[in-house]
Amino acid sequence: MKSNGILFIISAPSGSGKTTLISKLVDSIGGIGRSISMTTRSPRAGEIDGVDYIFIGKGEFLKRKKKGEFLEWAKVFDEYYGTPKKYIKHLVAKGQDVVLNIDVQGAMKIKRLKMKTVFIFILPPSIELLKERLVGRSTESKKVINERLKFVKKEMAYLSRYDYAVVNNKIEAALGHLRSIVIAERCKIRRG
Amino acid sequence: MKSNGILFIISAPSGSGKTTLISKLVDSIGGIGRSISMTTRSPRAGEIDGVDYIFIGKGEFLKRKKKGEFLEWAKVFDEYYGTPKKYIKHLVAKGQDVVLNIDVQGAMKIKRLKMKTVFIFILPPSIELLKERLVGRSTESKKVINERLKFVKKEMAYLSRYDYAVVNNKIEAALGHLRSIVIAERCKIRRG
Repeated sequence: MKSNGILFIISAPSGSGKTTLISKLVDSIGGIGRSISMTTRSPRAGEIDGVDYIFIGKGEFLKRKKKGEFLEWAKVFDEYYGTPKKYIKHLVAKGQDVVLNIDVQGAMKIKRLKMKTVFIFILPPSIELLKERLVGRSTESKKVINERLKFVKKEMAYLSRYDYAVVNNKIEAALGHLRSIVIAERCKIRRG
Repeated sequence: MKSNGILFIISAPSGSGKTTLISKLVDSIGGIGRSISMTTRSPRAGEIDGVDYIFIGKGEFLKRKKKGEFLEWAKVFDEYYGTPKKYIKHLVAKGQDVVLNIDVQGAMKIKRLKMKTVFIFILPPSIELLKERLVGRSTESKKVINERLKFVKKEMAYLSRYDYAVVNNKIEAALGHLRSIVIAERCKIRRG
C-alpha cells in the first residue's frame, strides 16, 4: 500500500535564489514534482511560461478564483498569485511528493488545510547580500527594491511558523540541505 | 551564539547492521560525536573496548548505577547496558551533536528527559533477512537466535514512539538516509 505524497511548501524572499534551488532540487531527487503557480505578473528575464509560472491575465485569474480552483491565492504588489488545487491533489494521492514555491501569505493559508505538509523557509545569507542580488538583477527600480527589502523583513517575521530554515549561502550546500529535508521527511514516522 | 547540540538516539534489533552504520555516519559527517555505552556483556568478535562499548564488570556497573552516573540503563538478556551522563551533557552543551546507540528500553527512558532529542529506528529489511544475518554471524546458538527474534518482534512494537525509521536494505542508501536526518534536524526550527 502506497501512502500519500508529502507537500513541501518553500517560501523565500525574492532574491534569495529560490527559483534556481527548487529546479535543482526537483532535477536531483526522484519522486518529487513541482506545482506550478499561476500569476498575473509579467515574466522576468529567463522565466518560462508553464515552467516557472503559468502567466495569465487578471480576468482569467479572477474567473478561476471565483470557481474555487486555487488551493491558495494571494495579491502581492498588485499582482495575483495562485496555486491550482487539482494537479497537486492528483500527484499527492498517487504517492508523489510535490514542491510548492509560494510566498509567506500563501503558505499561511495552506497551514490551515488537512494535508501532510512541510514548511521550508529559504533565507538569504544577509539582508545586505539580498540587496546586492536584487540590484544585480536590475529588473526593478531603486524604489521597488527598497519596498521589497521592507517586505522581506516583514516576511522573515513568519520564520517561526515554518518547520525548516535553509540559508542559501552556497547553492550546492543549500541544495544538499533541501535534499536532506525531503529524504528525512520520507523517513519520518507520522502519528495519526 | 551557538545553540545546544542535538542528541540522536538510534535503536535497532541486533543483526540490523546498526553498529557499522553508526560508525560510518559519524565518520562521514562533521560536528557529531558518539556516546559510548557501558556494558557488562562480553565483547563480540571485532568489537573494541572503548570504541564499540566500554566493557566493565557487574560490580563496577552497579556501583556507577547507584551513584546516578547513567542517563539511562537497562538489563537485557541478564546483562547491563548504561549510558554515561556526564560526557553527553558536556558535548551537547558545547553545541556538538551526539549519536547514542541504545536499545528500545533505554530509548524510552530518555524520552522522559528534557533535551533536544531525535529518535531513529533502524529496521532490518525483513525478519527473514535478520535471521539469516544472525545465523551468519554464528556467535549465538539456535536457541538464543530464536529468543532474539521473538525479542525483535517485541521491540518493533515501539516503532511508533520513534521519529524516523530507516530500513537498512543497502548500507549506502541507509547511510544516506541517516545523514539526511541529521542535516534536516539541524535545519529544523524549534519552537519553545
